[in-house]
Amino acid sequence: MQPKYNKSIDFLQIFNSCVGEIHVCLQQKPAAASSAAPEEATDSRPLPPGWRSYTSPEGMKYYVNSSSKETTWRRPSLSAEAPQRPLAPNNSSPYANGCHSGTKTGRPAETADVALRKPTVNKQINCVTFPLPGEGPEQQLLKPNEWSYCDYFWTDKKDPQGTNSVAGFEVLLQKQLKGKQMQKEMAEFIHERIKIEEEYAKNLSKLSLSPLALQEEGTLGEAWTQLKKSLHDEAEVHLKFSNKLHTEVEKPLLTFRGDNFKKDLKKYDHHIADLRKQLASRYAGVEKARKALADRQKDLEVKTQQLEIKLSNKTEEDIKKARRKSTQAGDDLMRCVDLYNQTQSKWFEEMVTTSMELEKLEVERIEWIQQHLRQYTTLRHETDMFNQSMVEPVDQLLQNVDPGKDRELWVKENKTGEVRPVDMDI
Amino acid sequence: MQPKYNKSIDFLQIFNSCVGEIHVCLQQKPAAASSAAPEEATDSRPLPPGWRSYTSPEGMKYYVNSSSKETTWRRPSLSAEAPQRPLAPNNSSPYANGCHSGTKTGRPAETADVALRKPTVNKQINCVTFPLPGEGPEQQLLKPNEWSYCDYFWTDKKDPQGTNSVAGFEVLLQKQLKGKQMQKEMAEFIHERIKIEEEYAKNLSKLSLSPLALQEEGTLGEAWTQLKKSLHDEAEVHLKFSNKLHTEVEKPLLTFRGDNFKKDLKKYDHHIADLRKQLASRYAGVEKARKALADRQKDLEVKTQQLEIKLSNKTEEDIKKARRKSTQAGDDLMRCVDLYNQTQSKWFEEMVTTSMELEKLEVERIEWIQQHLRQYTTLRHETDMFNQSMVEPVDQLLQNVDPGKDRELWVKENKTGEVRPVDMDI
Repeated sequence: MQPKYNKSIDFLQIFNSCVGEIHVCLQQKPAAASSAAPEEATDSRPLPPGWRSYTSPEGMKYYVNSSSKETTWRRPSLSAEAPQRPLAPNNSSPYANGCHSGTKTGRPAETADVALRKPTVNKQINCVTFPLPGEGPEQQLLKPNEWSYCDYFWTDKKDPQGTNSVAGFEVLLQKQLKGKQMQKEMAEFIHERIKIEEEYAKNLSKLSLSPLALQEEGTLGEAWTQLKKSLHDEAEVHLKFSNKLHTEVEKPLLTFRGDNFKKDLKKYDHHIADLRKQLASRYAGVEKARKALADRQKDLEVKTQQLEIKLSNKTEEDIKKARRKSTQAGDDLMRCVDLYNQTQSKWFEEMVTTSMELEKLEVERIEWIQQHLRQYTTLRHETDMFNQSMVEPVDQLLQNVDPGKDRELWVKENKTGEVRPVDMDI
Repeated sequence: MQPKYNKSIDFLQIFNSCVGEIHVCLQQKPAAASSAAPEEATDSRPLPPGWRSYTSPEGMKYYVNSSSKETTWRRPSLSAEAPQRPLAPNNSSPYANGCHSGTKTGRPAETADVALRKPTVNKQINCVTFPLPGEGPEQQLLKPNEWSYCDYFWTDKKDPQGTNSVAGFEVLLQKQLKGKQMQKEMAEFIHERIKIEEEYAKNLSKLSLSPLALQEEGTLGEAWTQLKKSLHDEAEVHLKFSNKLHTEVEKPLLTFRGDNFKKDLKKYDHHIADLRKQLASRYAGVEKARKALADRQKDLEVKTQQLEIKLSNKTEEDIKKARRKSTQAGDDLMRCVDLYNQTQSKWFEEMVTTSMELEKLEVERIEWIQQHLRQYTTLRHETDMFNQSMVEPVDQLLQNVDPGKDRELWVKENKTGEVRPVDMDI
């Protein structure tokens, strides 16, 4: 299968890779059975050491080497040949980035020595492990130039009071809650506008029914009647406006994302928080194991010195025993670190997927609001246009006003007699 | 001076003629000194019998023969020559019409005989003298095809209750009062509209200041802020509308024709009513004189019969005396009829001039109202146009809404940390 480079697929690759990587971390479990599952399902032949295969949401298989940070769409063969074609240009490959599983598998004795020889090159903040500044490979953003939520909220931050710290994820949740509130307040605002329009319409149509100047006659009377009627028509326009505002703007803004939305956010919240708690306890386990190992190694040293002083089979036995226990402690520490890294990777995975879900939700919210505020302006324009057309018949009849015609009509109806008086004869 | 036939002058001629005719009536005063005045002023030579001269409002001299109903712009000479060139075509000449002075001047004795010989060819209604149906020359309208007030309100009419009768002139006055009332009610209507606009504007600008969704951020926040601001702008538009309605429509309608108007109408009313009262008393005078003459003639007859029975100088004397008294009574009646006709002519003149004044006022009222209701529709159109322009900036900013941009702004401000966690080393 050929790798895809086009823009649309670019993030998919990166994201799949993350998920892959996360699985890599998960693979560190001593019981590696489940980890092997996806690969075995399709191909019985084992992958070269360090390689694992994953399936993208589209069902495409791709391969990750967690030590060399290589990714490829082509199945690596056992005869570990020249570096595979990378899944994405190296600078955008998450495998130059964080959450790599740097754990080496090896024989217990070595491990014990390693634990003594190698200082840790990372620091923990609130039980999350970050690379020391300048240490480790440089990290590229998961979604460069996108200002994606999944790239900027890894650290906890002190809350305004600076007393206890807030997880970066909380900041994302706050944004969501605020967005929901804004949407609700916009609906309220539109509702207020609706009430104003209804009041205006009520007053206009009430006035249009007033009997004022009802007895005006002739062409002027007709124009006046139409002018009064036009207020009723205007009222209708504003009533239509308020009705449409209700169904086409207020309601959509109000009902967009019901109460489930907040429940969903809580679920996300608890899920991520639980993982952080788990991470803390795993971290405590690591610390405990690290101390135990140190004690064991100290004990082994003492016993070795005693051996040098006076030879006895008794001591020989003790040293063997001490070394066994030290080796055991090394294995314990290794297991605890693995467990810790698995949990951190799980949290990492959830952080990426969930923050990108929240990002999607925010884009939807903004587009939804934009769409319905546009509807608002469309309705406003309509209203002005309709209103204008309500005045035209009045203009028409005002043009037809004709004092001569009105006099004729009135005189015909009210004349008393057109025979003029004449002189009286004698 | 040549006669004028063009349309514009046509009514002027007719109307001048009316006035002239009215003067004719006035000329019947026994003391004819004042009547001769206009003519003597210019020409000492007397006019042929029956002719009188008058001056039109333009100062043009014209001549009227009240017996032959002729009118001319050329001074008739004493040698009564062939019929003069008429002032206007005979069918439009008022002298084929009403209010002609049919009184003949002649020697008392003749008059007395006339009084016996000639029956009156007209009837009186409420002391106004009208030609009997079919009797007398046919009347043409003073302003044909114009439905002029001056042509249709000569008769009194019974009021709705049918108890007492209302003068035609009262009907014209009622129309004026009603018109004033209509104009006042239209102003009230506009005032109500103004109040509605002010209320609407108040509510809109209040809502535009509401803090709802004030914390919306980024490009969406900008669009929302503009949308709220647009309500303030709309409010301004409606406020401007209501202010202009006040100064350019309500006020002009309210102040057009102040309280003086009703005072003027009262003056007209009283003036015409007084003339009608005068006419009534003159009418009573005529009736009295007519009865006196009849008595005198009866007495003369009796005395003449006595003379036929037995001859005596005594009776001769009585007869002479009775004839003198009868002649006197004839003169009295003639004078009373003249006085009556003068008053009726004066009333006729006032009716024509005043009703035409009222007609002018009504035309002015209708045109004034038409003009200011047009201003109303103009302002309404303006308002819709301005309102539309208030929405455009909102449309603009809604177009610019960009979820990506908003995420960038928000992330830059709220990110907690972009360094991703890494696996813990042993």
